[in-house]
Amino acid sequence: MADLIQELVSALRCLPGVGPKSGQRMAYHLLERDRGGARRLSEALLAAVERIGHCRHCRTLCQDDACSLCSDQRRDATQLCIVETPSDIHALEQAGGYRGHYFVLMGHLSPLDGIGPEELGLDTLQTRFDQGIVSEVILATNPTVEGEATAHYIAGMAQDAGLRATRIAYGVPFGGELEYMDAGTLTHALSGRRNVDV
Amino acid sequence: MADLIQELVSALRCLPGVGPKSGQRMAYHLLERDRGGARRLSEALLAAVERIGHCRHCRTLCQDDACSLCSDQRRDATQLCIVETPSDIHALEQAGGYRGHYFVLMGHLSPLDGIGPEELGLDTLQTRFDQGIVSEVILATNPTVEGEATAHYIAGMAQDAGLRATRIAYGVPFGGELEYMDAGTLTHALSGRRNVDV
Repeated sequence: MADLIQELVSALRCLPGVGPKSGQRMAYHLLERDRGGARRLSEALLAAVERIGHCRHCRTLCQDDACSLCSDQRRDATQLCIVETPSDIHALEQAGGYRGHYFVLMGHLSPLDGIGPEELGLDTLQTRFDQGIVSEVILATNPTVEGEATAHYIAGMAQDAGLRATRIAYGVPFGGELEYMDAGTLTHALSGRRNVDV
Repeated sequence: MADLIQELVSALRCLPGVGPKSGQRMAYHLLERDRGGARRLSEALLAAVERIGHCRHCRTLCQDDACSLCSDQRRDATQLCIVETPSDIHALEQAGGYRGHYFVLMGHLSPLDGIGPEELGLDTLQTRFDQGIVSEVILATNPTVEGEATAHYIAGMAQDAGLRATRIAYGVPFGGELEYMDAGTLTHALSGRRNVDV
């Protein structure tokens, strides 16, 4: 293989889920059939890497100083939903229903990897709490050990600031079948049961 | 989502096997965790698109006037193996054993898609036949209807030029199980049977 093709195959492997075989397939596909697409991808990558930064308010990925959600005056500034990644915002927005603001940690507490409160921007979050606009903090970190620990930590911060802290519900996912749920999910679904109002 | 992220997700979809969901995952992965890799990929794509052309002799993708296989004086110039794509050369070279030259069609005959002898560079191939160096033409197009038709067409050209034309063997793949083979493969495996010399 020519050096440039080899370099392209190797560079393609920075994409998640792409190994040597699929990288080779992608490289040949682009060179044989879609050079226009390859050129466009090259430009999109460069533009994104150079111009996408973080929102000053919520830390999500965005190309301006503040993201469109934070700049939207119609959203409820008293609710602040804490998520781990920008794609979590995307998922929640796609689901609809939530009209408050977000705060993106860009990860979760993970002391072994050197990720502490500072890396998650919790100082910025503290400033936000202190401003007195937010009244409810919705903890929407992932239901993993690290996500739980992070939620717990931020709940403590919220309580210290005199704010209401809530955690999104654990339970059986919509359309899921009890038969195939793991024990942890079922335990949480039972303990989180609610009254049925008829 | 910011416009540049959306453009990146959409540009990533030029890669084979990448849809909206995986494109989004790739875009966020690069922006959150591997901006260096994204920059490298952008450069590799641009360099490959701008500098990878076709070998003057065998039409494979290469960055110089002639590819390394065609320039290799130690290879047997009397054998010419006809393949459909550059990745076929890669596969055959990985398998080892063949020491002749290659010729890449960059496709197969497909009149409905407007791909005729000219698009496959068969005029170049004819010139090559006429030079009198090649003595055997090995037809290694894919065992599909189009690959067969293409092989048949080139076999005719070779015969007209007084060259020996051979077709790679059809049969049960190494390590395969008869039980799971399709009828076509088994029929070919039977009709292509050879004497066993003990």
